[in-house]
Amino acid sequence: MCIAHHNPSVQVTADHRIEIKQNEVPELKPGEVLIHPRVTGICGSDIHLWKHGQIGDLKVLDNLVLGHEAAGEIIGVGDEVKNVAIGDRVAIEPGIPCNACFLCRQGDYNLCQDVKFIGMYPHAGSMQRYLVHDARYVYKLPDNMTYAQGALVEPVSVGYHGVERANLILGHGVMIAGAGPIGLVTLLLVKAAGCTPIVITDLSEGRLAFAKKLVPDVITYKIDPKLSPQENGAQIRKIFGDTELEAPSRILECTGVETSIITCAYVVRRSGLLMIIGVGKDTFNNFPFMQLSFAEIDLKFSNRYHDTWPTVINMISNGIINVDDLVTHRFELEKADEAIALASDPRKGSIKVLIEDMQSKL
Amino acid sequence: MCIAHHNPSVQVTADHRIEIKQNEVPELKPGEVLIHPRVTGICGSDIHLWKHGQIGDLKVLDNLVLGHEAAGEIIGVGDEVKNVAIGDRVAIEPGIPCNACFLCRQGDYNLCQDVKFIGMYPHAGSMQRYLVHDARYVYKLPDNMTYAQGALVEPVSVGYHGVERANLILGHGVMIAGAGPIGLVTLLLVKAAGCTPIVITDLSEGRLAFAKKLVPDVITYKIDPKLSPQENGAQIRKIFGDTELEAPSRILECTGVETSIITCAYVVRRSGLLMIIGVGKDTFNNFPFMQLSFAEIDLKFSNRYHDTWPTVINMISNGIINVDDLVTHRFELEKADEAIALASDPRKGSIKVLIEDMQSKL
Amino acid sequence: MCIAHHNPSVQVTADHRIEIKQNEVPELKPGEVLIHPRVTGICGSDIHLWKHGQIGDLKVLDNLVLGHEAAGEIIGVGDEVKNVAIGDRVAIEPGIPCNACFLCRQGDYNLCQDVKFIGMYPHAGSMQRYLVHDARYVYKLPDNMTYAQGALVEPVSVGYHGVERANLILGHGVMIAGAGPIGLVTLLLVKAAGCTPIVITDLSEGRLAFAKKLVPDVITYKIDPKLSPQENGAQIRKIFGDTELEAPSRILECTGVETSIITCAYVVRRSGLLMIIGVGKDTFNNFPFMQLSFAEIDLKFSNRYHDTWPTVINMISNGIINVDDLVTHRFELEKADEAIALASDPRKGSIKVLIEDMQSKL
Amino acid sequence: MCIAHHNPSVQVTADHRIEIKQNEVPELKPGEVLIHPRVTGICGSDIHLWKHGQIGDLKVLDNLVLGHEAAGEIIGVGDEVKNVAIGDRVAIEPGIPCNACFLCRQGDYNLCQDVKFIGMYPHAGSMQRYLVHDARYVYKLPDNMTYAQGALVEPVSVGYHGVERANLILGHGVMIAGAGPIGLVTLLLVKAAGCTPIVITDLSEGRLAFAKKLVPDVITYKIDPKLSPQENGAQIRKIFGDTELEAPSRILECTGVETSIITCAYVVRRSGLLMIIGVGKDTFNNFPFMQLSFAEIDLKFSNRYHDTWPTVINMISNGIINVDDLVTHRFELEKADEAIALASDPRKGSIKVLIEDMQSKL
Repeated sequence: MCIAHHNPSVQVTADHRIEIKQNEVPELKPGEVLIHPRVTGICGSDIHLWKHGQIGDLKVLDNLVLGHEAAGEIIGVGDEVKNVAIGDRVAIEPGIPCNACFLCRQGDYNLCQDVKFIGMYPHAGSMQRYLVHDARYVYKLPDNMTYAQGALVEPVSVGYHGVERANLILGHGVMIAGAGPIGLVTLLLVKAAGCTPIVITDLSEGRLAFAKKLVPDVITYKIDPKLSPQENGAQIRKIFGDTELEAPSRILECTGVETSIITCAYVVRRSGLLMIIGVGKDTFNNFPFMQLSFAEIDLKFSNRYHDTWPTVINMISNGIINVDDLVTHRFELEKADEAIALASDPRKGSIKVLIEDMQSKL
Repeated sequence: MCIAHHNPSVQVTADHRIEIKQNEVPELKPGEVLIHPRVTGICGSDIHLWKHGQIGDLKVLDNLVLGHEAAGEIIGVGDEVKNVAIGDRVAIEPGIPCNACFLCRQGDYNLCQDVKFIGMYPHAGSMQRYLVHDARYVYKLPDNMTYAQGALVEPVSVGYHGVERANLILGHGVMIAGAGPIGLVTLLLVKAAGCTPIVITDLSEGRLAFAKKLVPDVITYKIDPKLSPQENGAQIRKIFGDTELEAPSRILECTGVETSIITCAYVVRRSGLLMIIGVGKDTFNNFPFMQLSFAEIDLKFSNRYHDTWPTVINMISNGIINVDDLVTHRFELEKADEAIALASDPRKGSIKVLIEDMQSKL
Repeated sequence: MCIAHHNPSVQVTADHRIEIKQNEVPELKPGEVLIHPRVTGICGSDIHLWKHGQIGDLKVLDNLVLGHEAAGEIIGVGDEVKNVAIGDRVAIEPGIPCNACFLCRQGDYNLCQDVKFIGMYPHAGSMQRYLVHDARYVYKLPDNMTYAQGALVEPVSVGYHGVERANLILGHGVMIAGAGPIGLVTLLLVKAAGCTPIVITDLSEGRLAFAKKLVPDVITYKIDPKLSPQENGAQIRKIFGDTELEAPSRILECTGVETSIITCAYVVRRSGLLMIIGVGKDTFNNFPFMQLSFAEIDLKFSNRYHDTWPTVINMISNGIINVDDLVTHRFELEKADEAIALASDPRKGSIKVLIEDMQSKL
Repeated sequence: MCIAHHNPSVQVTADHRIEIKQNEVPELKPGEVLIHPRVTGICGSDIHLWKHGQIGDLKVLDNLVLGHEAAGEIIGVGDEVKNVAIGDRVAIEPGIPCNACFLCRQGDYNLCQDVKFIGMYPHAGSMQRYLVHDARYVYKLPDNMTYAQGALVEPVSVGYHGVERANLILGHGVMIAGAGPIGLVTLLLVKAAGCTPIVITDLSEGRLAFAKKLVPDVITYKIDPKLSPQENGAQIRKIFGDTELEAPSRILECTGVETSIITCAYVVRRSGLLMIIGVGKDTFNNFPFMQLSFAEIDLKFSNRYHDTWPTVINMISNGIINVDDLVTHRFELEKADEAIALASDPRKGSIKVLIEDMQSKL
């Protein structure tokens, strides 16, 4: 198969620049597919990689093609590939786990320590015209789904994994902390799961207004930075009602910020669960130990996702969640630098910025 | 407090008649409330008690006031009652458990072997003008809920308990067997919980049409009595899709009929769960042992409910489920015999028949 | 019934003294029993109440009879009591929950906000000759169990509740942090549950030696206070083995100390569980957020117990755990002040100090 | 690598004979190892294949090398193999799942529909001198474990999977139905897990005596075939005690026989769990539907195992269970036909018969 194509890609450099430049396409091995990515969403981690050159311990040591929220078209299939064919439209699961360690075997492949995750150094991401990927981690899109919706399966999966691990209780109240992209997909999922009332919090009125437009019956609460976490927590509790019974049995924390996590600890109902999806600093202080201990509140954490693509595709295709309104901006692949700059500017009010490569003839 | 009122009640007699006659009102003890039941729904078990004089081992040895799906008005409060006051509108949880056995303590009070359940011999039910009940088992109705909705909390609770124990997976397919009253409340709940697709089955086209009107995007399948359970199961599987992955991970069986349960066993996905809410004969044959064993399908059973009233009231009040369309007929208390006769006649197509006592001046 | 007995009791005063003085015995109401406590264990919380006059928000506002780890003899039964009779030897569950709130109903009665807990202000404890208690919360001792064993059911219950909530995995490695009384009962239980290897940590060599004598195949690790939590954690991991697979899937933290909790976070296996039984300061710093988040380690807390007495009695009676060796000292009721002073002195190396009232003729 | 060795193997033929004959050894591919099986246990399914030529839908269409309970020595390693080296002593997990389907990904690889299971047609088993296997499914034996113990990891895994899925409760009573090989490994595991009392049932006094020797404090009950399941169940209940509380919260059924399963349904405690490990006829009659429904008893099934080898090896190596006494007979590879004949004869009282190939020079 000829893969000596012109292959423009969006690369972050060690000195914190974004460049659009040619990237070599590797040969297709058995079990792999060649994909023409059509849409890639920009994630906060892309911006973090650009600005800081690392995420946690993972450093960008050389130029890196970005992109892990992606959908595209199958344009080549390696030997032994049976689940997709040329011409198929697919959503891409970016992480390829080792399938041999105990974590993979027990179903927690998101925790695999040998995962190859595209768009994370040193694995080239989807912001290029040609991407080689393991065929087992691409999923056919139903005819009624767009590539943009296919790309959104990734951020929805982040929320879905947290929501599933949280064991939401049908008809119970839920609080969501943070109305950024992950908070908003979580909101869509919690609404779909039949929880009520749902309260979402943020420091930004703009984001809360966005949340309200997305799910009209959500109740928004603007965190008052002059109040302590306990005080903000007490205000949020009042929204749910005066009794312990009415307090939310589940909270989904989507910011990873110390004060927000502490606030949640003062809102969750006795015997409830605080699920932390957001990520933040390595450590934080003022952990409300005895508040959680006396009330036996479980604290759980959510890292990426596993087994979510078929389910999230099913939900979007069948109209259980509508993700279209999350997209605020779209750019051509060649203008990815502008797209990333915009996505990184909080004043622009973007939620999900997409990079598209729809017109190219191959 | 004077309780020597005129107290008409609906009684089933040992010789299988329904009579409207005076019933003595007991004195109010500490912790009890006197309720004027305003609406009571007729349940299949009421009809069974009338026609057979027993349910399982429980025999009706003397006249029995029927009624356990009820809401009413508080017209008297005993000493030490704090949760409600005269004038409050309440939904009634009919079973009063012992609060001392290990089952009550561990949270499974529905399984308490010393429960006092109104409308089951020898405990007088709610089809009377005055009912004395334990104050801990009445729940205030929000202003936006009707007495009829309050009475429906009981049958919805039956479905809710099964649905909660089934650990539905957001975005997965679900099958519901049976479109009678319990199948229909289960349908409302599964729809509210974000499952898709949802397939409901029944032998009656009328009931399936009712289900479709209630939840327009449900898929109905009329069981073909000429086909074997395996064959009907294969047909239902095709609706979900061609792959094992697409088969429903959860099935809620609401008929208790042998062939229906076996059919479900051939539909549920490997590693899935078959929750049996319906009740039926003491034993059944042709249990599909190896089908369940090879696929590690969990079989669970649901008996009544616990801890459901606050949640179900919250759901109805906040519009997560709409139960109004379940009500097909309404009768005055004095015409309860007609109501029960109608409810017992399958040709009448009733789903939920209510007995009302709205006009009485006390 | 005459209860105007001479009733010596062990009281803590508002000005931090322990006094042995007469205490009035209340009248027996229906459902209550009069108990002659024979053995009461001294708990760290008794010492805390004595020295600080409060535990958390709970203040001692007046003289308080101490004691909540108790077993005794039934010497009077109120009306309606059926589960025990005069002469029965019983273990006493000290907390009497409200049996009406949602927490009691759902089985989490340990979290009831209206619990009456003996030995906590203002409820008189068991360090007296006569104690009135709710009959539902006393449990007959089998003939082969001593009063001392009966009193130990309470501290064993603290460990049991944590162990049960931790969902130990048979045959997996477990770490226990802290070799004080709760760490040691937890050790007995984890050993009984078939986990291996078991590593227990402490700062005190004496306590580790005690643990080793109690459970010879436990592996002890003395925390090196000069090392950081990460460094101590790395040392402990090495004991389990070199691979992630061998790291303990469950850790039971029994100290409540910041550095110990953080150490545990660096030992637990990816996808594992850190159960915190120990209590400590209201808040702590340096919470290892991202360590837990990346590895999806659940953090759970354990507050007292529910439904444990029958099971723990069954275990002790059938020899599944041997608690006798936990008892290091015994004192007569009249010398309770000496007993409490000894128990509060870490140089004395006591584990469980019992106060006995075995000889009294009533 | 030369693998043109003399390779004697134990084959079952389509006409129900056992033959010892040469078997071709396939070439080693990347990721595979060449094993010299040293010990293989005989399983009931081997005998079933021999006598019936099929198990369930799986038919033996040609000569088949038997054997799936095996341990051996690594004598060759393919490319890319890192977890073992030549000379390593290993236990063999016989099933190699596809690692691509949703069941493999979610951790239920035992339910994979594309598993390659050695000793099941058409995959050659371990009763031969040379076996090629996927390196990911062999596990190093600690120095203190024998090959015989390594071979026993497989049947212990069958029990372990059932026990783990049953969520045993520490200190609760458990019943085990059936004292054959699987019932006995289950007994060892339930004992190790700290349950008490443990009652084991069987029709054979010899097997019950064997169980008693293996675990002296187990209580044995000989099923009386003249009694109905309800009557046998009532007798077994009496052993646990007179109250519902004392009845076993978990039952592990290891026979797969209709009357035994029904008996268990009458013994298990309300809200308990009946785990069926045994397999039997496709369907059975007299399923005690309402008994299970009223009591909300969960029914679960166990099919093979996943993720058990490291844990079971850890347990045997650390002395948590002692499996040596399960072995009643040993035969050389060349006398495998005698071994299988003996194992199939119930009058011989064998439990675990091993086929050994210890002396061969390669």
